[in-house]
Amino acid sequence: MNQINQVAIVGGSHGNELIGVYLVKKFQKYPDLIKRTGYKTVSLLGNPQAINAGRRYIDRDLNRCFTGTNLPDGETSIYEEIRAREIQTILQPQGQASVDVIIDLHTTTANMGLCIILGNMHPILLNLAAHLSTINPLVKVYIHEQPRNSGFLRSLSELGFAIEVGAVAQGILDAELFQHTEQIIYAALDYLEQFNQGKINENINTLTLYKSISTVDYPRDENGEIQAMIHPQLQFRDYQPLHPGNPLFLTFDDQEILYEGESTVYPIFINEAAYYEKGIAMYFSQKQVIDI
Amino acid sequence: MNQINQVAIVGGSHGNELIGVYLVKKFQKYPDLIKRTGYKTVSLLGNPQAINAGRRYIDRDLNRCFTGTNLPDGETSIYEEIRAREIQTILQPQGQASVDVIIDLHTTTANMGLCIILGNMHPILLNLAAHLSTINPLVKVYIHEQPRNSGFLRSLSELGFAIEVGAVAQGILDAELFQHTEQIIYAALDYLEQFNQGKINENINTLTLYKSISTVDYPRDENGEIQAMIHPQLQFRDYQPLHPGNPLFLTFDDQEILYEGESTVYPIFINEAAYYEKGIAMYFSQKQVIDI
Repeated sequence: MNQINQVAIVGGSHGNELIGVYLVKKFQKYPDLIKRTGYKTVSLLGNPQAINAGRRYIDRDLNRCFTGTNLPDGETSIYEEIRAREIQTILQPQGQASVDVIIDLHTTTANMGLCIILGNMHPILLNLAAHLSTINPLVKVYIHEQPRNSGFLRSLSELGFAIEVGAVAQGILDAELFQHTEQIIYAALDYLEQFNQGKINENINTLTLYKSISTVDYPRDENGEIQAMIHPQLQFRDYQPLHPGNPLFLTFDDQEILYEGESTVYPIFINEAAYYEKGIAMYFSQKQVIDI
Repeated sequence: MNQINQVAIVGGSHGNELIGVYLVKKFQKYPDLIKRTGYKTVSLLGNPQAINAGRRYIDRDLNRCFTGTNLPDGETSIYEEIRAREIQTILQPQGQASVDVIIDLHTTTANMGLCIILGNMHPILLNLAAHLSTINPLVKVYIHEQPRNSGFLRSLSELGFAIEVGAVAQGILDAELFQHTEQIIYAALDYLEQFNQGKINENINTLTLYKSISTVDYPRDENGEIQAMIHPQLQFRDYQPLHPGNPLFLTFDDQEILYEGESTVYPIFINEAAYYEKGIAMYFSQKQVIDI
């Protein structure tokens, strides 16, 4: 790809992640903020009904409904499946050019800082992420490799990525994280502008990545009831090394559950509220420094 | 009142405040933890349907439905009104003795620490709160004066109070705050045991209180749409003095909104997620040291 023609910024794919919601409302009020000369930028709210209800979703997690051509053709009464098709029609209209870049805005109750989530290792994404890491040392880069149309909004586009900021509670605005997210968006848009102009001439040779290797569920009883909490020594320690023997969970009657793996891992998305129902207490990742 | 005969501990009046939910589940599994010799202790889950749904409430905030004898006698299809009547029947059965003390467990996204919320200035409550402040310096005492049966669960009982801990996101467990809350409950139960035995002989003469004086809403446009966020310099600064001229809000286009009152106040419940819909960005309180 030599030329970016269209960029989409989506906020509120989850209705209770307010930073993305209010950033998109701001961009729709002041479109010049995201206008660049070399490409067209659109912004949209992902899940308007969930935003109105103050909930992550109405019927189903919208950000698992983007299965592309696999979307059912028949009728569905699931609101998020209908909305996923609408969004796909906006971003990839039949017979017209699709958006090249999707920036999907999220927040998390985990202490993820300013996280760029990539679904693949496309060189443009890696270089963009490296650039963003350079201008803001709080930026972290997480790779969760996914095929196209794997359900995530970002997977609709080869150059889709998410900006996932935290820790912030669901249903609230955090002004500092709002401003950080806004600055990352502008930096990404400026980078894509320079890319179009052939003006990328940074000397960044390496990029530190956190690469998803597995999920870890809470200890549960036979009824699926949670039996333990994130250990206090692990809470908010996203991206920190977890060594064999380190505490992982604390049961409700104060028993420590230790990490019994054989190698050091880097937990992320620790104690994300929306993942309790998905059976995910955290992701384990590997930390890698790659040449780019 | 010379004798406490029954104490009730209620968790999950709000279904997404998990610390109270899992503490009550623990107490129901191990009832000896809350058993004392001088009175009977019961524990119950406030809003089972909301707990299952992972939401604050189904139809209406349960903790505004306890209007006592004013509860409608006719049919209602509002789940929380029905549930409020059920709880009232459990705690105040007709023709039998009512519970004397209600301990209502809550969490908040505001940085309220370990807050004891009193609805009145009953000497037993003030002395209990002073005792709890003494054994744990993280405990703060907030007075929000309310008549009996004013809607809050705690208002059913003259000796009702809430334990409100934060900052914690909705929908997650925080192990450290779970343990702190548990310890406060045991300390309160032990104090009531000693009260019954006439063994309270502490020399506490003063108590620091934060007393509610007003609510402050977010700046909104004519459609009710929020126009600003809690200012970063105010976020998480619950109980800290706010002086005239200090920043209060930050608009989405970076304009500061200052506090224009004439006297210093102490904001609390700053940026509580559930209060956005109630039109409350924070409460202003006065800090007082009273003789007890």
